[in-house]
Amino acid sequence: MKSDMREAQRLTGGRPVAVLGCGLVGSGWAVVFARAGLAVRMFDRNPGAVRSALATVEQQLRGLERHGLMQEPAADVMDRVSVAPTLANAVRGAAYVQESVPERHDVKRELIELLDTVAGEDFVVGSSTSGIPASAFALELPIAPRVLIAHPVNPPSLVPLVELVPSSATSEQSLAFADALMRAVGQSVVHVRKEIQGFVLNRLQAVLLREAWALVEGGVATCEDVDKAVRDGLGWRWSFMGPFEAIDLNAPGGVADYARKLGPLYRDIAGSRTHDRGWDDALIAEVERQRRMFLGENALASRREWRDEQLMRFAAIRATGAVSINISAKGKA
Amino acid sequence: MKSDMREAQRLTGGRPVAVLGCGLVGSGWAVVFARAGLAVRMFDRNPGAVRSALATVEQQLRGLERHGLMQEPAADVMDRVSVAPTLANAVRGAAYVQESVPERHDVKRELIELLDTVAGEDFVVGSSTSGIPASAFALELPIAPRVLIAHPVNPPSLVPLVELVPSSATSEQSLAFADALMRAVGQSVVHVRKEIQGFVLNRLQAVLLREAWALVEGGVATCEDVDKAVRDGLGWRWSFMGPFEAIDLNAPGGVADYARKLGPLYRDIAGSRTHDRGWDDALIAEVERQRRMFLGENALASRREWRDEQLMRFAAIRATGAVSINISAKGKA
Repeated sequence: MKSDMREAQRLTGGRPVAVLGCGLVGSGWAVVFARAGLAVRMFDRNPGAVRSALATVEQQLRGLERHGLMQEPAADVMDRVSVAPTLANAVRGAAYVQESVPERHDVKRELIELLDTVAGEDFVVGSSTSGIPASAFALELPIAPRVLIAHPVNPPSLVPLVELVPSSATSEQSLAFADALMRAVGQSVVHVRKEIQGFVLNRLQAVLLREAWALVEGGVATCEDVDKAVRDGLGWRWSFMGPFEAIDLNAPGGVADYARKLGPLYRDIAGSRTHDRGWDDALIAEVERQRRMFLGENALASRREWRDEQLMRFAAIRATGAVSINISAKGKA
Repeated sequence: MKSDMREAQRLTGGRPVAVLGCGLVGSGWAVVFARAGLAVRMFDRNPGAVRSALATVEQQLRGLERHGLMQEPAADVMDRVSVAPTLANAVRGAAYVQESVPERHDVKRELIELLDTVAGEDFVVGSSTSGIPASAFALELPIAPRVLIAHPVNPPSLVPLVELVPSSATSEQSLAFADALMRAVGQSVVHVRKEIQGFVLNRLQAVLLREAWALVEGGVATCEDVDKAVRDGLGWRWSFMGPFEAIDLNAPGGVADYARKLGPLYRDIAGSRTHDRGWDDALIAEVERQRRMFLGENALASRREWRDEQLMRFAAIRATGAVSINISAKGKA
């Protein structure tokens, strides 16, 4: 997922990108746009958040540099990141606005209303929300055709996936622009064609997690054994192939052959779970107990750093093509 | 998952391992045991299958050698693999028997009955079945305490995971022996404590696949976009962390914090699907159509070779620790 700096420049016409909301997600977005050659203006209502965000951006850039994932020195990229004194300054003349403000309907709505009042601007707004559809906070505003969801994986600077979800009011041009921009800055775009809860990525994660928890609840396996089944089994293929390609290659006659043979079994397995029960306190305590045997609470922070190191190593491997994904595409689905 | 040749020798007392049923799975098992220093005797009722299996074993060993995944030359390992003229010859004096005969209840039962009649032997029998519990074909035979399921990922020589599933009759010693042997030959062991349909790995895969197909059926995303969500998103973490560790690191307070925040959303997502419908012909045809746009039917075979190359590259990366999984275990769950 290498960025194409020339294409990113062309698409934005040399105009900056505004990053609104400067938590971990916003900081990651700033890295994504800045390393692709774009000027980034950051804004957060909380001055402390912006200061801490700049440190996060610099730290992420240095990590990427250490793993050979940058096309320029980190300091040069950092030069393109600035802090705007006001929201209006941040978005003035911007080609694109990525908002990552807190995940609350009223906060999102207030921000979009503010952006709507900025006269004469034509920027497209992407929202990082994982759970609030754009139609819930942008509809019926004049700006609505320029608003869509651009939901990243955290942090977007490390894992390239972004889900683009238009509302019923989003224009085709806005969606096409966001798609082209995201590809140009090196992200992998998933088009979610309906505003479904959890979009695609979190829905896939949700069903797997529910089954994982149910297996522990039923005493079928420990958390660590479930983790192994993914880490030492399923995850090997899924690190370079999606589930459809995996099963397409797993039966002599391809995916249809596979579906006819194994579909009924998979229906039985999925159907054997009822998903109406929550994870109760006893189950949560048991999972917590098992995890803390492997990782003490005071080791969580260092393990997160380890995870980010692993993700950067993985990114470096993917970037050099050691685990390449050169799909021999004949067309586009 | 490096094998420990000395430990494998110690556990087996220098006795051979028998591999019964010489399809792709059996061939992969032969590679696993032979590269760990054990003598392997292969047997299949179909002489053609054995000849073809030897070629497969040699090809897999050469691939592993090419990727630096062997501790000795492939030819030396191949020297330890022999073909037995009869079933009795194959299992005589064996410390362990891995059966990978066709996935039919009557075939499995017949084999276990045959093994039961071999006098004076004390081998443990692991079955490669993915769907037939050991209690369905071994119970009530004198051999039952020595029979359990050792379900691999295909091919076991590339992806290290193995699920051990005892029946109610399997002895603790047999399970402990199989666990120790599998670890010694370099496999990653998941203990499945109940004979549940699909065990752990296929249950996790089943629920994710069902959601994937439902997303395509509902027009939410294309197959390729679902594949991207895994390949460029979820799969990055799952290639070195299981789902429990991933969420444990994804909330400030760890897994319990995460569960309280996101559990209700995940329940809603999982609960929004009914899993009682099969994949009908129209849906299968649509998925098939989309996949064939990316990969023509005549390219399936070469893409499978590509997949195995990727898996070997991935194995090489894991072996060198570039994406290490040095869990700082404080104990065992």
